[in-house]
Amino acid sequence: MTKKDQSQENNQLKDIIAHAKEYGFVYPSSEIYDGLQAVYDYGPYGVELKNNLKKLWWESMTRLHENIVGIDAAIFMHPTTWKASGHVDSFNDPMVDNKDSKKRYRADVLIEEKAAQFENAGDTDRAKSLLSAMARLMEAEDFAALRDLLINENISCPISGTTNWTDIRQFNLMFSTQVGSVADESSTIYLRPETAQGIFVNFLNVQKTARMKVPFGIAQIGKAFRNEIVARQFIFRMREFEQMEMQFFVRPGTELDWYKTWAEARLNWHKALGIPTEKLRRHDHEKLAHYANAALDIEYEFPFGYKEVEGIHSRTDFDLKSHQEYSKKKQQYFDPEINQNYIPYVIETSIGADRLFLMTLCNAYVEEEVDGKQRTYLKLHPAVAPVKAAILPLTKKDGLPEKAREIVEALKYDFNIIYEDAASIGKRYTRQDLIGTPFCIAVDHQTLEDNTVTIRHRDTTEQERVSISELHVRLTAACSFRTIFGLL
Amino acid sequence: MTKKDQSQENNQLKDIIAHAKEYGFVYPSSEIYDGLQAVYDYGPYGVELKNNLKKLWWESMTRLHENIVGIDAAIFMHPTTWKASGHVDSFNDPMVDNKDSKKRYRADVLIEEKAAQFENAGDTDRAKSLLSAMARLMEAEDFAALRDLLINENISCPISGTTNWTDIRQFNLMFSTQVGSVADESSTIYLRPETAQGIFVNFLNVQKTARMKVPFGIAQIGKAFRNEIVARQFIFRMREFEQMEMQFFVRPGTELDWYKTWAEARLNWHKALGIPTEKLRRHDHEKLAHYANAALDIEYEFPFGYKEVEGIHSRTDFDLKSHQEYSKKKQQYFDPEINQNYIPYVIETSIGADRLFLMTLCNAYVEEEVDGKQRTYLKLHPAVAPVKAAILPLTKKDGLPEKAREIVEALKYDFNIIYEDAASIGKRYTRQDLIGTPFCIAVDHQTLEDNTVTIRHRDTTEQERVSISELHVRLTAACSFRTIFGLL
Repeated sequence: MTKKDQSQENNQLKDIIAHAKEYGFVYPSSEIYDGLQAVYDYGPYGVELKNNLKKLWWESMTRLHENIVGIDAAIFMHPTTWKASGHVDSFNDPMVDNKDSKKRYRADVLIEEKAAQFENAGDTDRAKSLLSAMARLMEAEDFAALRDLLINENISCPISGTTNWTDIRQFNLMFSTQVGSVADESSTIYLRPETAQGIFVNFLNVQKTARMKVPFGIAQIGKAFRNEIVARQFIFRMREFEQMEMQFFVRPGTELDWYKTWAEARLNWHKALGIPTEKLRRHDHEKLAHYANAALDIEYEFPFGYKEVEGIHSRTDFDLKSHQEYSKKKQQYFDPEINQNYIPYVIETSIGADRLFLMTLCNAYVEEEVDGKQRTYLKLHPAVAPVKAAILPLTKKDGLPEKAREIVEALKYDFNIIYEDAASIGKRYTRQDLIGTPFCIAVDHQTLEDNTVTIRHRDTTEQERVSISELHVRLTAACSFRTIFGLL
Repeated sequence: MTKKDQSQENNQLKDIIAHAKEYGFVYPSSEIYDGLQAVYDYGPYGVELKNNLKKLWWESMTRLHENIVGIDAAIFMHPTTWKASGHVDSFNDPMVDNKDSKKRYRADVLIEEKAAQFENAGDTDRAKSLLSAMARLMEAEDFAALRDLLINENISCPISGTTNWTDIRQFNLMFSTQVGSVADESSTIYLRPETAQGIFVNFLNVQKTARMKVPFGIAQIGKAFRNEIVARQFIFRMREFEQMEMQFFVRPGTELDWYKTWAEARLNWHKALGIPTEKLRRHDHEKLAHYANAALDIEYEFPFGYKEVEGIHSRTDFDLKSHQEYSKKKQQYFDPEINQNYIPYVIETSIGADRLFLMTLCNAYVEEEVDGKQRTYLKLHPAVAPVKAAILPLTKKDGLPEKAREIVEALKYDFNIIYEDAASIGKRYTRQDLIGTPFCIAVDHQTLEDNTVTIRHRDTTEQERVSISELHVRLTAACSFRTIFGLL
């Protein structure tokens, strides 16, 4: 990517961030106190869009699959959970300080940025060799050599410009807090860095109380927290974020078939939501985490490049086995079909709700010129759009507002509806375009005569005349999840 | 209440806790590690019930009121937020240690328990005088005198039996954590102890970007955290819990009218959900918090007595004014109707999602004897029941399973449906009763001939024959929120 391309794409992200703020989708957290880094709040249209996306995922998982049920485990968990999962010992980033600027960085990120510079300058070989050297040293946890690499490659602090680096130290990304009252009774607990462990520790509870038979899945939506040092790219990498994870428990030996099935199913899900195939790609991991025997990312082409939206991981029996070891409680399933006890293997699908939101927003954001005029609108799938229809009386008199409100009453129990009677009809259309409302329904004098209204379609701006009695059916057809489920 | 009554009611709570665990509603958190005190996880049926209750509240607030919109603010907020709200300085409990047992208690709870003993022994006067003495000392923050009260009233440690108490110290209930990497860059932030402040700091963002006019409201659902020392009564008082709050911004001087309106509206909401009037009561606060000029609780008669489910508070302009002072940013609204700038007054409705869940479960739990047989079932409103219908082929052969699955396919996109073909039909009915499924739909040989099925109703156990083509309409009528919205 050239520098010019990069700057254009950064501008596109800036436009989207500004749009999200101005039209009530996403605000910086605690903005009146000048914000809290890497934390954001969802505004009135943002929360509706996000809730729709979460509901779509939830119903796709639990209703469309007879053998998947949900849970909602707490953020607080027994601290031994994180010992068993490996997070206490291994969930670290290599941090380094510049002695001159006193600024702190992630050593691996500094090196990646240097590699990107080589790449941009056309020196692909040098970029590759630098990245592979880094990967080797990180794997070996040889941080003295990693520091030497910084110095030898002349990787300097962007503030001081020097390579006067401290030793590299490991920094655990889990947030901790004290539970109980002070002194002897208190103990350290963590804010969960992933939702998955809430599913693993409840594996037997769910299997028994919901009487599930392997293969079966457990789905969960919830907050997770990571003390990211380099948090950036808007809501892409936040310190507080929301995950939607599903752990699918299978008979050992069948896991790679299920891995393939889920990888395809999840890719299709994104396409059904309206993400174009050419903006999605599958990235198979070459290097695998210690618990995995296969892993891939589903990546989307964000304005800042292809980045992970969802991960599919074949986690083997690592987690259940480790919890069995630490808890001394058997985590086994008796499979009546083969008359055997075993610890199931697990295929995990893990998607960030905030990343899904950002992908959806980036994909929907359209700036176009029509008849010499600039128009911006959000081309959101009607099933996830925050507002389904705006009911707009042409004028504020002659009984049009009353008639419009009758329509609101008939629709509001089943759809998120806006009523608006201020400003010109054109301005009101524009306003709805900006928040992605798929249908504007105008009530005019003819409405009083024949009970018909004008539907103005967001994407085409075309208008058509339909009977009021048809509206409910029309909105149901366009806005229900069935339109998406039918493609899965 | 006599001791015998108390023990019966405690048994009822025990039955409900056991039922919640055994049938997949609520599990102790991290149970394989022997749990984490005052934290619970929602199982497959629990999460569906809770989600339905949250959705009902959300839609009641945002869809049924044109002038209420939602947000979803982060749990992490700028720490000055909690200085401005008063939580850093005043969100404390008075803790005391017994020097012999080394156990720690909340001094006020020890005194309340003593008062309850007087009450149970018929000495109401002494109970009242003890409680009023405590209230006076707590208000004056005279902890030396509070300790004297413990000793003079012979209030002893339940473990050691002695009154050998340490000094009483204030203990802040907020959980804190460190954000950023170690050393100089790090700073202390809090896990929010209430969701309300996320609304207050976003007041102007929401008002401007969603173009709201006073009076208007902002609704939010989210987790909050309190380091409760005495956490008990199952999910009634947890360290991690979920709030559903709505702040309604009004013109100063109109707040007490709006307070009255919301108090009535919220009480009606609980009744519409099916909570009997005689189990609900309104408790008006005599002593008001420093920020309030009127406050009441809506209480429900739990097995452990009448306790708060929801609070309605007239919070004046305390919060916005304080944020204006700390942020140095005007928190004013220009009211075009009276041509004036002002800081709006606020009426708050604040309900605990977990308490609403517990009330719903307690209210639904029925043990009855029919024809000499014991039957337990959950009489949940169909609109909030986790599963709407179970589709049950009478036998596993003759094409009945296939026919039953056709029905599942026709319903599953719109309703949470269970298919089950194992065990006798009676056992399957029982199983659905225990998780509160309102309708069991049996598919038998007649179904193959005339496309009719048997609907068995949970509460009456009565059965009726209906056409398959009617099922969708029947379920929609019974299970949609319209049945509740119509009563509001």
